[in-house]
Amino acid sequence: MPQTESITLDDIREAHQQIKPFIKRTPVLTSTYFNNKLGGEFYFKCENFQKTGAFKARGATHAVLRLSEQQALRGVATHSSGNHAAALARAAAIRGIPAYIVMPKNAPPVKIRAVESYKGLITFCEPSLQSREEQVERLIKKTGATFIPPYNHRDVILGQATAALELLEECPDLDAVIAPVGGGGLLAGTSLSIKLIKPGISVYGAEPEQANDAWQSFHTGELMPALAPNTIADGLRTSLGPLTFSIIREHTDDILTVTEHQIIASMREIWERMKIIIEPSCSVPLAAVETYPELFLDKKTGIILSGGNTDLDSLPWQ
Amino acid sequence: MPQTESITLDDIREAHQQIKPFIKRTPVLTSTYFNNKLGGEFYFKCENFQKTGAFKARGATHAVLRLSEQQALRGVATHSSGNHAAALARAAAIRGIPAYIVMPKNAPPVKIRAVESYKGLITFCEPSLQSREEQVERLIKKTGATFIPPYNHRDVILGQATAALELLEECPDLDAVIAPVGGGGLLAGTSLSIKLIKPGISVYGAEPEQANDAWQSFHTGELMPALAPNTIADGLRTSLGPLTFSIIREHTDDILTVTEHQIIASMREIWERMKIIIEPSCSVPLAAVETYPELFLDKKTGIILSGGNTDLDSLPWQ
Repeated sequence: MPQTESITLDDIREAHQQIKPFIKRTPVLTSTYFNNKLGGEFYFKCENFQKTGAFKARGATHAVLRLSEQQALRGVATHSSGNHAAALARAAAIRGIPAYIVMPKNAPPVKIRAVESYKGLITFCEPSLQSREEQVERLIKKTGATFIPPYNHRDVILGQATAALELLEECPDLDAVIAPVGGGGLLAGTSLSIKLIKPGISVYGAEPEQANDAWQSFHTGELMPALAPNTIADGLRTSLGPLTFSIIREHTDDILTVTEHQIIASMREIWERMKIIIEPSCSVPLAAVETYPELFLDKKTGIILSGGNTDLDSLPWQ
Repeated sequence: MPQTESITLDDIREAHQQIKPFIKRTPVLTSTYFNNKLGGEFYFKCENFQKTGAFKARGATHAVLRLSEQQALRGVATHSSGNHAAALARAAAIRGIPAYIVMPKNAPPVKIRAVESYKGLITFCEPSLQSREEQVERLIKKTGATFIPPYNHRDVILGQATAALELLEECPDLDAVIAPVGGGGLLAGTSLSIKLIKPGISVYGAEPEQANDAWQSFHTGELMPALAPNTIADGLRTSLGPLTFSIIREHTDDILTVTEHQIIASMREIWERMKIIIEPSCSVPLAAVETYPELFLDKKTGIILSGGNTDLDSLPWQ
């Protein structure tokens, strides 16, 4: 696996050039309400408007475009019940190659439909990590497809890094940037982009208290998996991998944790005040700003809004 | 009351210059999903992101800024349980003058809080038009405030016209524009802007079948009030006024009506696919496109999204 040190700003810029034709340049929104309430300036990078409804389209597209012709012919594979599955299926469709997606049979119908809409080839499995991994291994053996994991992968991280790159292009004089952390692909990419361009900008990860493996790993210096994560932020239940951990440890200033109550309150506040739809995982950075306001007072802060795929039939405040 | 004929493009441009510092230039969004589904190109002008959450901020701000110093000193007054109340309170606050707002005592708490947040001076009344009008008259007699009605008013219409002006600046080669119609302020303003700039562009109003006074008035040529309007699109229950009717009759190509079922389906579709929050009244134009797709096939159509003030505790599909 390539080392962190080997990633340069040119690598991120090259990734951006490669994926640009296939992703949205998402808008950066501001809100007078939040600026007044929190006493700073906040710039929301809206990856909830990204293709497939989440930043995941960046990393998956980059990883698929980087495959050699010979690799690509045999397709790609992953296991995921979330946004990475749809993003990989779409990326494979762009390149005209098969995407083998293993999904637990209890995955939400809306996520299954999303993968189907991009012609992903779904294999259902039991809802356990073991079953998922076995199924993917079997598929890879049979087809020769390349495994594209959801975050612990250099090309995926480089893709996710491009969101912060665009944010800095539009708002070059930020004091801080904050992104959610689950498996760490988005936070690793964000940290790399920011610190390679302007090391003086603080970078924070935001994590649910009830899935605080990144906080623990960051503060103990040892990779600790999430034990029984129990949070409404379903995109953040995963644990850091070795590569994302090493990048985050080196380039992130701190991990801030938040309560479930604050995650739901901040999600609703963004819906009401900004009139945009975000998923629970996506409100975690604003929840962190509301929990530690002194860190952001009188500062210019970029907030990466990660995604907007929410089941409109069951909202967390109901 | 000034005649329609007296409104020129310069009047609209002047209104735009006046209100520009106090309103948002709202983004124009596109959606690959809707383009593919409906077989055309659609440009969504997002007034749901406007200050106070609706296009109403444009008209109210313009009307307040146009008052003479002497008029302004005595304040402004209106009756409204909806978006105009908050917009007028905010406009008055900008000019530092009092806003007397008569609201029915059963108005939604969220609307009352919005008016309060802009320091509007609320008088509660019985929930009948008669009680609302009596209360406003009493207040005006007592204070000398100027009555700013929600739509049947030249300066209000000129303000609402600026949304289509901005849309055409960004998308000059549209074939059609569609806006919702309730009291007709937005549709009258939209028709004026479009036809004064490019008379070849078709302009449609979109209206709930169950509050189809504009459709009736347009087709009979006589102003017909809405009798017992019964629609979830609460912003469109009002009837045209003489001024909005005369402008719409002259400058609008047709009024298209839609079912309640389609209003709710289109609202949900916009939430799910575009990740933005709109209120039921706001989905009526898309509902009309989905009901009459042949009118928009292979065309470039601008859709004015009017507002995003929705009660998140009671969604129409639940």
